[in-house]
Amino acid sequence: MQDGDFKALKIDQGRMMDSLHSICSFGTGKRWGSAPTETGMSRLALSDSDKQARDWFVDTTTALGCAINLDAMGNIFAVRPGRQSGLATFAGSHLDTQPSGGRYDGILGILAGIEMLRVLEDHHIETEFPVGVVNWTNEEGARFPISMVSSGVWAEDIPLARAHNLKEVGGGKATVKSELERIGYLGTMPASYKSMPMAAHFELHIEQGPILETERQKVGVVHGVQAYRWFTVEVQGRDAHTGTTPLANRADAMLLAARLITHAHRLATTHSAMAATGILTLTPGSTNTIPGTVRFALDVRAPADATVDAMEADLKADFAALAAGENIGGLLDGSTPGKPLNISWQTDSVSPATLFHADCIAAVRAAAEAVTGDKGLVRDMTSGAGHDSVYASRRCPTSMIFVPSRNGVSHNPEEYTSPEDCAVGAEVLLQSVLRYDRL
Amino acid sequence: MQDGDFKALKIDQGRMMDSLHSICSFGTGKRWGSAPTETGMSRLALSDSDKQARDWFVDTTTALGCAINLDAMGNIFAVRPGRQSGLATFAGSHLDTQPSGGRYDGILGILAGIEMLRVLEDHHIETEFPVGVVNWTNEEGARFPISMVSSGVWAEDIPLARAHNLKEVGGGKATVKSELERIGYLGTMPASYKSMPMAAHFELHIEQGPILETERQKVGVVHGVQAYRWFTVEVQGRDAHTGTTPLANRADAMLLAARLITHAHRLATTHSAMAATGILTLTPGSTNTIPGTVRFALDVRAPADATVDAMEADLKADFAALAAGENIGGLLDGSTPGKPLNISWQTDSVSPATLFHADCIAAVRAAAEAVTGDKGLVRDMTSGAGHDSVYASRRCPTSMIFVPSRNGVSHNPEEYTSPEDCAVGAEVLLQSVLRYDRL
Ligand SMILES: NC(=O)NCCC(=O)O
Ligand SMILES: NC(=O)NCCC(=O)O
Repeated sequence: MQDGDFKALKIDQGRMMDSLHSICSFGTGKRWGSAPTETGMSRLALSDSDKQARDWFVDTTTALGCAINLDAMGNIFAVRPGRQSGLATFAGSHLDTQPSGGRYDGILGILAGIEMLRVLEDHHIETEFPVGVVNWTNEEGARFPISMVSSGVWAEDIPLARAHNLKEVGGGKATVKSELERIGYLGTMPASYKSMPMAAHFELHIEQGPILETERQKVGVVHGVQAYRWFTVEVQGRDAHTGTTPLANRADAMLLAARLITHAHRLATTHSAMAATGILTLTPGSTNTIPGTVRFALDVRAPADATVDAMEADLKADFAALAAGENIGGLLDGSTPGKPLNISWQTDSVSPATLFHADCIAAVRAAAEAVTGDKGLVRDMTSGAGHDSVYASRRCPTSMIFVPSRNGVSHNPEEYTSPEDCAVGAEVLLQSVLRYDRL
Repeated sequence: MQDGDFKALKIDQGRMMDSLHSICSFGTGKRWGSAPTETGMSRLALSDSDKQARDWFVDTTTALGCAINLDAMGNIFAVRPGRQSGLATFAGSHLDTQPSGGRYDGILGILAGIEMLRVLEDHHIETEFPVGVVNWTNEEGARFPISMVSSGVWAEDIPLARAHNLKEVGGGKATVKSELERIGYLGTMPASYKSMPMAAHFELHIEQGPILETERQKVGVVHGVQAYRWFTVEVQGRDAHTGTTPLANRADAMLLAARLITHAHRLATTHSAMAATGILTLTPGSTNTIPGTVRFALDVRAPADATVDAMEADLKADFAALAAGENIGGLLDGSTPGKPLNISWQTDSVSPATLFHADCIAAVRAAAEAVTGDKGLVRDMTSGAGHDSVYASRRCPTSMIFVPSRNGVSHNPEEYTSPEDCAVGAEVLLQSVLRYDRL
């Protein structure tokens, strides 16, 4: 193949989708339809099924001529040599999923990277510089509650020790490090951009939102990612009998938590931000005991850091006022006032608003227009979800490619992107990497 | 000892309290103070520690000359023969505790019953008819979520199969029957008042509320128990990504559950009733997934059945309206309206308002006035908590004796009643049983 011909390269949609569905046999989740592929995924980071998916990734990329580099966070960098030695341009994403997630979030990005390697092999293409595919560990933050934690360590934004010591949610004893050891993916290479520098990082991902579908467009050129912060709020009241404790004598941690969650949603509306609680535990956990302690997660997001700052300030002030018995927003109207409670906050992770690199954005736009043949099918976007590209972008030029999500649904077994849309995205990824390689 | 002399009988406070604290070594709970006895209890029904307490109960009462009768719910009836054969008058309560409970709730009633047997032995007293002590299984309803379930089966108000098949809360596999078998307390005698009829049932219990302490009184003559009902409410929304799902597109089961719990408390205020949520679970349980499913317990109480009926009707109507997006009580003010959700209700247990028997109430009042020597230290009361006496009272004359709870606290490790108050209660129990025996 001649220089420049790469623009005519086509990925093999059937082959890519077959591989994608075949590795969804590792950690298959809830069934939602009758077809064989109509299930979700439940492949938590560093679980047995994640190990199976990793083993497959290592075997497959090795067979495609890649060298494997495993770092201390279990990030796997598969690198295919180029004409010259130098920094590799990477396609990256993740193979872990939500406890009740879908077949596309993260997985599509890795499988499109592997399809890129296959196309290069098929056509005996030597790239200028090395190209690679990276599988980042625990992107979801579902099992170990910092999302993108391993690209964060690679970027030296999150200390290795903090990441290694992260405990799984739900009170289990396993840590990131103990699970890396258990499944044999604790690498010896330091987890750092200094040990594994990248020329650039491109990530194909499903949009996970409704915009492309609603606008009948095919490719999102992602300019950046909104800001978000995760907190754990602990409400401390007093255990008491549900039948003998007058309403006025209660310090009911569940009742206060209910008011706080209701109020967080109001503040999100006021600030044009987002807030949600996906984890909540109470103790002691008995039908006839008013819980003395409730802990809940709070995920707060907005396009601008300043908005998240303002949300955080308002949440902290209003939560404290509600705990003290002030009638914020009329939430206590018609209620018997109880005893004051205490609230403590823990910040679990901070992901500031991110802007991607102009060169990468340009490479993606050019590739998207070329692949779709129609500028009208391509739009600029900001990501609502976090991605490893957030941390990658701190240490190398980065951008992302989005493809449509049916009904905008994600973090749900019914997550779906058509094979045709997956293929368009994979082709844009391939072209973006090759364009960047020639730059 | 001569006929009639029983009014001079005294219980041995030190001996009773020593026994009480010594069986609190089975299932010791959270420490709250520095003294050896300053811990709570965690002795869930049919656990290993409950088996230890039961073994102690059987050994001790056997040594005191009792015959042991074990029924199919694991209720243990220890019966001491009288001058004539006939129905025994029982002192009854329970040895199981809350997961994070105290040393007095239930335990005092059993230990006072054993102290009664000891006093009778010490003085070689032959009662007219047999007297006994009964330990009822799973009174708390904390592990298997129907309170007083085993006296309920004895009364033939709860079917045996339903009780045997009850699963432990929190998703475990153990059932009442499997745990009875495991610890060796599945008796062959039918669990029924027909197999084990009682002449009467007296129960000494801590008040678990603040009234006696506040009024500086010593004994409550309990005339009845307020009504309560336990429900499990399941909220069904849709799992979705916290960062990419616009507020308007969400069917956030946790947000709706928070509004429902907030609203239940308002309705309780309106109806002069009570409502509390002591158990809540959400799925899938991930910081960045809006939970599609939340299940929570709702414990609703009021003195009159009609009030609980009205609460239930209002809760069902208002919960449905809130799920459909109606702005009940201004709870949706300032919030972005989301998608409708579904709610389903399950009634876990129903305990109607209970009135005790005039003869037993009279026996307790006479005993209390005699023991305290001061009518002013004795008051009539209604119990806020349920007790096995509720079901006992359906099949035999029944009443209860309350003693003060420090700060009105119960279902909490810090539950406390002074040794002197425990002794007064035990003496009133002894006298009530002996008075009834002579009736
Ligand atoms: N893409 C994705 O779902 N990442 C998880 C991090 C986040 O919560 O946004
Ligand atoms: N006494 C006591 O706490 N019993 C448990 C049943 C109830 O919830 O009222």
